[in-house]
Amino acid sequence: MAKKRSKTVTVDSVYGNYDPAITQRFEQASIVPGDRITLISGEKEVEGNLLAQNELGNPSTIIIKLDNGYNVGVTVDKNFEVTKQDGSVELESFEIRVPDQESNLPQISLIATGGTIASRIDYKTGGVVMAMEPEEIFATLPELFNEVSFKEVKSLFTLGSEDLSASEWKIMAREAASQIDEGTNGVVFTHGTDTMGYSSAVLSFMLQDLPVPVVLTGAQRSSDRGSYDGALNLIAAARAAAHANIAEVMVCMHHSSEDEIMQLSRGTKVRKMHTSRRDAFKTINEEPLALIDRDGKITQKVVSFQGRNDRQVKLLEEYEEKVGLIKTYPGVPPALLDWHVDQGYRGIILEGTGLGHVPTFPLRTENSWIPSIERAAEEGVFIGMTSQCLNGRVHPYVYRALRTALQAGVTYLGDMLPETALMKTGWTLGNFEDDYATIMTKNIAGEFSTLLKYTEY
Amino acid sequence: MAKKRSKTVTVDSVYGNYDPAITQRFEQASIVPGDRITLISGEKEVEGNLLAQNELGNPSTIIIKLDNGYNVGVTVDKNFEVTKQDGSVELESFEIRVPDQESNLPQISLIATGGTIASRIDYKTGGVVMAMEPEEIFATLPELFNEVSFKEVKSLFTLGSEDLSASEWKIMAREAASQIDEGTNGVVFTHGTDTMGYSSAVLSFMLQDLPVPVVLTGAQRSSDRGSYDGALNLIAAARAAAHANIAEVMVCMHHSSEDEIMQLSRGTKVRKMHTSRRDAFKTINEEPLALIDRDGKITQKVVSFQGRNDRQVKLLEEYEEKVGLIKTYPGVPPALLDWHVDQGYRGIILEGTGLGHVPTFPLRTENSWIPSIERAAEEGVFIGMTSQCLNGRVHPYVYRALRTALQAGVTYLGDMLPETALMKTGWTLGNFEDDYATIMTKNIAGEFSTLLKYTEY
Repeated sequence: MAKKRSKTVTVDSVYGNYDPAITQRFEQASIVPGDRITLISGEKEVEGNLLAQNELGNPSTIIIKLDNGYNVGVTVDKNFEVTKQDGSVELESFEIRVPDQESNLPQISLIATGGTIASRIDYKTGGVVMAMEPEEIFATLPELFNEVSFKEVKSLFTLGSEDLSASEWKIMAREAASQIDEGTNGVVFTHGTDTMGYSSAVLSFMLQDLPVPVVLTGAQRSSDRGSYDGALNLIAAARAAAHANIAEVMVCMHHSSEDEIMQLSRGTKVRKMHTSRRDAFKTINEEPLALIDRDGKITQKVVSFQGRNDRQVKLLEEYEEKVGLIKTYPGVPPALLDWHVDQGYRGIILEGTGLGHVPTFPLRTENSWIPSIERAAEEGVFIGMTSQCLNGRVHPYVYRALRTALQAGVTYLGDMLPETALMKTGWTLGNFEDDYATIMTKNIAGEFSTLLKYTEY
Repeated sequence: MAKKRSKTVTVDSVYGNYDPAITQRFEQASIVPGDRITLISGEKEVEGNLLAQNELGNPSTIIIKLDNGYNVGVTVDKNFEVTKQDGSVELESFEIRVPDQESNLPQISLIATGGTIASRIDYKTGGVVMAMEPEEIFATLPELFNEVSFKEVKSLFTLGSEDLSASEWKIMAREAASQIDEGTNGVVFTHGTDTMGYSSAVLSFMLQDLPVPVVLTGAQRSSDRGSYDGALNLIAAARAAAHANIAEVMVCMHHSSEDEIMQLSRGTKVRKMHTSRRDAFKTINEEPLALIDRDGKITQKVVSFQGRNDRQVKLLEEYEEKVGLIKTYPGVPPALLDWHVDQGYRGIILEGTGLGHVPTFPLRTENSWIPSIERAAEEGVFIGMTSQCLNGRVHPYVYRALRTALQAGVTYLGDMLPETALMKTGWTLGNFEDDYATIMTKNIAGEFSTLLKYTEY
């Protein structure tokens, strides 16, 4: 099925960007990238295979691939000691290559968009910058090359996930559809984690009738850190794209903070719930679709999903950018909704309190949201209600105040996540002419849980 | 310590608001409220002690107190059967009384503000309405009367929690300070659950140098439902107010969905994380302060807190209402921040993505938030950063884009919850003249976690 391919990234010297003083020491010891070495610097002693230094890396930091698959960077002083050991591997002069592969391997597409998984420390500022080419990411994952082949490895853009929005989502959707039309077995997007849940949700709607998996993955820790999670996430994502019998848009990240199990979460039900933990991504209001262990074993859970199939992917990639999300709070002024309407917003998702409340202020009716909601509804603005509790579902029939809001023109969106509801609103308004409430309350990409009970949260 | 007190709520007849046809049947069987009965209606058979019907209740619904402490309402048809059993209790003709008590019981104050715990089904609309007087709530909790006495039982207002804001928080703070000044052993507020986390946070700041516990509690299910949680929450809250050696503002709600263990969460670290579950309240980024079992045993956890003490409570109840919370999302327009500044907002909490990002859009700089943040900062608007991940902490030193935002005038607020940060901003701007960033980054009421590691989330 796969064609033989190889891709290269060339660096100027076999050593890349190392400081000449370091390069000289390597040369004296007849050490080249790929060689197994023991490095001693100060209190640190590290054994593994030497990698060349990227052009953006610190020239004084020696990068070593450990036996556990991680890369570690050791910033050395002049007195470091390096010794060659048995166990060198062929790195082909650090021309990073997707090596020639068996032609019967399943073929997947790897599409990079930026994010921590494609980042390195900028040693000039101490911060993390987006840098790595997809081939560079893959070069550190030789174990995959015996399992999957690559129909395409490409970078669409190199953006922190806070800077992606509709134009990028459209490019991603078109690229995925194009790869699928050309026969890929699955698509992997590398992506920043901060807005991965937004992107996975909107792609879930843009890519209709999916025949194969589309998997978003990323890293919570950058690749120079010992706790780097991107390698295992990417391996699991590639395995899912190649093998999982799930034709949905999914997020593949760590299931727990140990490096044992990754999880596949439905693209519309997943949320980043921790700023830094490797198991930050939680499936909300349902179970993950599947778990993937280190050996690649995929365990599907008892959740409904679409299996692989022969459908033609249907691209519905329009997106109305005049949609907004308003999280309410005690005293939130209804003028905030008025402003959005005045600005020409066509859809608003409210992240209300509890079962879906906005202030109605029986004692101070001038601060009630009801007149502003009525006005927005009269002007044709779609208003959807979700809950800032995140878990559970909004329900307009419990409290009298909610039924008032319902009558004023609010559509209650069940257990849909606020972020997913925002994405669905932009997609619905972008691709359809009218009857928005009908589309918004129809289960299109698993955004409403179909199982009545989900006990863990 | 306690004075003997009794309080009454009078209803017109011994039976209250029951339908005359039902009252007649009770009279024929010589059954009065307090009597133990077996009620059979259609498929339902219920045994327990008859209660009178509240004036807002459905006259055709017979209210029975079950042996498990819950009340159940059975809406009966004409063919219902009722039989008197052994085991009547004295309900004093349904004059609801806090009975005469032993004078050595610890004395607490119960202050009602509304919410589901003080609500009943409105059988005309099918919705839940706020109705019950605090005495009515307490009348269903006879087990407490041997444990605590009541310095005061009063209702400040009867509002759904979405309709509380600064003016109510001030009244609550003044009431708590007044009760404490008068020597109460602890204050219990009953409160709607939807914004209980906001109120507990703002009271944590308004009530400085607390000498005794202030405990907010409520119910996720209304008192006519079998799954009513308000009774156990209120019992645990009263026990905490009377006995817990914790002089903090806390939330007392179910620890798990079973009726076994309640938890005390620090007022600044707690969030409603489920729309309907009884264990909806989660302590975020730290452990609960204590657990309370059904028998009243209080188990304190390894978390730092202030014990009971002899300090004079200090009331700092001003609140600047021109503070807002903005949750960011991909493509969120910087004009949204401009609008707040134009409206005279003096403080803004951003709920950014991940470690605290807003869009900086290197490719579309006209959509970058940085110029709007700079403008707001120049106009003296305090801008604080939190994370929509909720768990974990924001950190400006990891990513280059964040350091740019920091330089533009954003104060990063560690692991403070967005809602707590909003409350603290209103409180800080209301009570202090300047140097807001210093106050906002100082740990005043446990809003910053002091333990470095909290593994569960």
